[in-house]
Amino acid sequence: MNNYQTPLRDIDFTLFELFDYTSHCRAIGHAALDRELTSAFFVEAARFAEGVLAPLGPVGDQQGCKLVDGKVITPIGFKAAYQHYCDAGWPTLSRSVAYGGQGLPQSLGVILSEILGTPNWAWGMYAGLSQGAMHTIETHGTEQQKQQYLPALISGRWTGTMCLTEAQAGSDLGLLCARAEPQPDGSYCITGTKIFISSGDHDLAENIVHIVLARLPDAPAGTKGISLFVVPKILVKEDGALAAANGVTCTALEAKMGIHGNATCVLQFEGAKGWLLGEVNKGLNHMFTFMNLARVGSGLQGLAHAELGYQQSRLYARERLQMRSLTGVKNIAGPADPIIVHPDIRRMLLTQKSLVEGIRMLSYYANIKMDVSQHSTNSDECQQATDLLSLLTPIVKAFSTEAGFESANLALQCLGGHGYIRDWGLEQNLRDCRIATLYEGTTGIQSLDLLGRKVLGSGGKTLEPLLDEISQLCHMCDDNEQLTAHAAQLATLSQEWQQLSMNIARQAQHNPDEIGAAAVDYLMYSGYLVLAFLWLKAQRTALQQLASPVADPGFYRAKLAAAEFYFARILPRTISLVKSMESGADNLMSLASADF
Amino acid sequence: MNNYQTPLRDIDFTLFELFDYTSHCRAIGHAALDRELTSAFFVEAARFAEGVLAPLGPVGDQQGCKLVDGKVITPIGFKAAYQHYCDAGWPTLSRSVAYGGQGLPQSLGVILSEILGTPNWAWGMYAGLSQGAMHTIETHGTEQQKQQYLPALISGRWTGTMCLTEAQAGSDLGLLCARAEPQPDGSYCITGTKIFISSGDHDLAENIVHIVLARLPDAPAGTKGISLFVVPKILVKEDGALAAANGVTCTALEAKMGIHGNATCVLQFEGAKGWLLGEVNKGLNHMFTFMNLARVGSGLQGLAHAELGYQQSRLYARERLQMRSLTGVKNIAGPADPIIVHPDIRRMLLTQKSLVEGIRMLSYYANIKMDVSQHSTNSDECQQATDLLSLLTPIVKAFSTEAGFESANLALQCLGGHGYIRDWGLEQNLRDCRIATLYEGTTGIQSLDLLGRKVLGSGGKTLEPLLDEISQLCHMCDDNEQLTAHAAQLATLSQEWQQLSMNIARQAQHNPDEIGAAAVDYLMYSGYLVLAFLWLKAQRTALQQLASPVADPGFYRAKLAAAEFYFARILPRTISLVKSMESGADNLMSLASADF
Repeated sequence: MNNYQTPLRDIDFTLFELFDYTSHCRAIGHAALDRELTSAFFVEAARFAEGVLAPLGPVGDQQGCKLVDGKVITPIGFKAAYQHYCDAGWPTLSRSVAYGGQGLPQSLGVILSEILGTPNWAWGMYAGLSQGAMHTIETHGTEQQKQQYLPALISGRWTGTMCLTEAQAGSDLGLLCARAEPQPDGSYCITGTKIFISSGDHDLAENIVHIVLARLPDAPAGTKGISLFVVPKILVKEDGALAAANGVTCTALEAKMGIHGNATCVLQFEGAKGWLLGEVNKGLNHMFTFMNLARVGSGLQGLAHAELGYQQSRLYARERLQMRSLTGVKNIAGPADPIIVHPDIRRMLLTQKSLVEGIRMLSYYANIKMDVSQHSTNSDECQQATDLLSLLTPIVKAFSTEAGFESANLALQCLGGHGYIRDWGLEQNLRDCRIATLYEGTTGIQSLDLLGRKVLGSGGKTLEPLLDEISQLCHMCDDNEQLTAHAAQLATLSQEWQQLSMNIARQAQHNPDEIGAAAVDYLMYSGYLVLAFLWLKAQRTALQQLASPVADPGFYRAKLAAAEFYFARILPRTISLVKSMESGADNLMSLASADF
Repeated sequence: MNNYQTPLRDIDFTLFELFDYTSHCRAIGHAALDRELTSAFFVEAARFAEGVLAPLGPVGDQQGCKLVDGKVITPIGFKAAYQHYCDAGWPTLSRSVAYGGQGLPQSLGVILSEILGTPNWAWGMYAGLSQGAMHTIETHGTEQQKQQYLPALISGRWTGTMCLTEAQAGSDLGLLCARAEPQPDGSYCITGTKIFISSGDHDLAENIVHIVLARLPDAPAGTKGISLFVVPKILVKEDGALAAANGVTCTALEAKMGIHGNATCVLQFEGAKGWLLGEVNKGLNHMFTFMNLARVGSGLQGLAHAELGYQQSRLYARERLQMRSLTGVKNIAGPADPIIVHPDIRRMLLTQKSLVEGIRMLSYYANIKMDVSQHSTNSDECQQATDLLSLLTPIVKAFSTEAGFESANLALQCLGGHGYIRDWGLEQNLRDCRIATLYEGTTGIQSLDLLGRKVLGSGGKTLEPLLDEISQLCHMCDDNEQLTAHAAQLATLSQEWQQLSMNIARQAQHNPDEIGAAAVDYLMYSGYLVLAFLWLKAQRTALQQLASPVADPGFYRAKLAAAEFYFARILPRTISLVKSMESGADNLMSLASADF
């Protein structure tokens, strides 16, 4: 099936009506980026996404990548689509003007990733990983390294990867073993095996620039002895021309549950030539400087699969005729009613709608804070945005991907047995989606980051900017009786959030395992809370719009219905999460490992 | 990976220590079936499951079935395993003695399905569907039909299928179109296309007996005009010998998310010869007489995948070294601690353990009621067991498969990125599992059956036998302070359950959509409640065992820990479900279909 339509109306609503993107762009020095220009840009991206990438989604899944004589071959059509992407100048969007980029806000680049990634996430990862590599070189490279690598990467002529994981070192990068021996010419000789390298090898571009974590011979053990290197697949002369092949080989492709169109490689570095990026032994710190971007980016995957699933299941629910409504026949001319008349189908659709549009709001909210943190000239504002972004990042990554999986799973369920077979694409969508809560830090890792590092690590201070915004919104809802009930629910929750955080902090003083015991429940609780804040904001915006005649009142009515549904049927999940957190660590830790 | 081990200890605990299977067998006339004999039987089944079926699990997934020149070819090894199964006499277990069966209790047959299905569900479906067909012929066939078909089916020489679904008729069988024209010789000429026919064609057996739903030319529209037919793939002479091929062809195999080793067929009936089973236009009623068995059987699939996932993720969590425990180094000799020291990994393992063992208790509880309903000579007892089974059936089917999917998904999550690749088998396990909430009636359909037909349809009467058992257990826990807190939680919940049921009944008088709006939440609530009852029972049993010296105290300690975990961290989900139910149908029904 290929009837994916970019949700341009909802993207526009979220950016311009909810978050006033016009003023935002003006404030960060991009006054030219108005609603008209941005929309024209999204329309063009949507045309490419729908016309070229969507039909290649199932092709990529069914063909997968092949390793033939040491070379990785991508599915038919992927290379031409990538060429199209480069020709249109898409990779240049948010990159440095000095090396051929357009220097537009990061937020725009992230939304481009959403538009292109939704119909074909596996393809989008080739482009996405490349952006990560560019960002790393822009931030930590020497001027010479930038000149050597960035123009070709930014044009799309080359792509990039991030090589972190090894067989024994996944969540725990401190265990990694890849070695980097200094050479007399100032380069390093890199040796080791990296696994799970997305887009690690392929035939889309003429070179691949690997960003690799490795240890110097005298480096301290653990995370403090890791350095970052740039290791091209084909060596590059100082003027950027290609030279001989480097010692990097793809020795295997992983057989995976989904995202078959993306090559997940085992990469063998055998005396490969690499160059240090940034400072010795600061490799992990350097990686963390762009973790926000990477994690906000991977949170998008939850949004992508939730959106695709929602569109398909909604279409099916309107067309599929089975049984009659219990309140009387609705489709007199037909043999049965469309299943969208049945309450349980609506429950599944509205769960999807409130999650899809909720995590879109969450993602854009974080993106806008990222722009401010990167571009604001007001240092207070910048600091506040940085703090808020740092709090939101693990929520965006983990909540969006968990909620995205739930949503994609309900989409499949709406189709009954038809969801399980290939035709409607929903089983592929669920398989593709499943990786998102695992890579770029599992949900467990994100939750420890949120609760341990961000909240407890700051003594709760990082909660404050968000609590302030919530409090302001609740006050603004005071004068509207259609909003006061939800505002009161939200205000109560935000007090509970603070209280919960303090309780866990107190318990953790006696037993550090209390943090891990509460972390995932705490993260999910936080996600539902932030979504309640955003749905209240959306409800308020929709009511404001409906106060005057509008072209599409149905769009706003649906926003109101989704907000109502969210507060009534999704937000109460927080109650169970609180009970689970409050039960403490003992019920997890008391059983001996051998007795499980 | 192939290290699956049949959970014989837990099967034994659940049957004999929890449910006193010895007395049960004696009461239904199988006094010879004692603990020793049953155990020997399970050990033999386990040997076949672990030695033969488990290694074929990944083979079936990777090879799938092929349709070559109109013939379906199953994966390598499936046919030999099936022959082994027949040679050992397994298909005969619970079938009529008169036609070659052993006449043992149905419960034993269901547990055999669990043992054989867990390592390889796709293979198990060939045997499982066949049991359904035999049961139908045993119940509705004429003596001649029984003699003609049952001996070959019971020996396993032939297999059977159930042919219900058509493209336009899934959940709504009233829409089915297959036609049955009466012939002068008393047979019928069957024409139509059936889809999603599991085990619909294959090379394991010399003939396949299809049980087919179709309409007579003058039949009333809807569900009241459907009749049941027996339609062999190869025609059978009166003495049971094979004759010419019948007009049934497999025209396509579905490409599915999982269970690749089972052939899901499109079957074309073109003037096939069929014979009426039971009465004209009573086809659906006849099907419903064995729905309990079929649905309790498909609920097992949730148990199977949850068990397999739990075993693998537990093994991984004990072996995989990543990071140190926050409460101090646990594995001094190693570079890191096994991840089972981390609270969140334990949360995921205990969620699995409490669900796996919980749904095993639920399944066996229903099986035992099924035996009583079939064999008890005390008519009150028989009626009570029948009522309780009828209430439990949709819960066993839908709750077990939903909880099984959650559990299998957490198993994958425990492995991080390694869960997403083929090696550990957990991605196949999740794909295979995904069908279970869809076929044999989706979760939505089961929920309507529970709330609409069973509970509200009886004015709440069907709740009574279970409420009585819960109340008895709570009283028995009065004298033990280690149990009183949980008993009080359970007693409160069982009152709430009645109240909820009455509230929905009242609301449904004004708006029938209130039933559909609450149904799935109600079913999940009921499932958590029944599991709380069973976990309290298990906790009590474990405490009793630990009161004297036992050979494996760790086994009982783990039962206590899982019960504690279940009451503290899983059961509170009921609170959110109640909030969602209480919010009513309006938040689902008010939005126009076009505005979604």
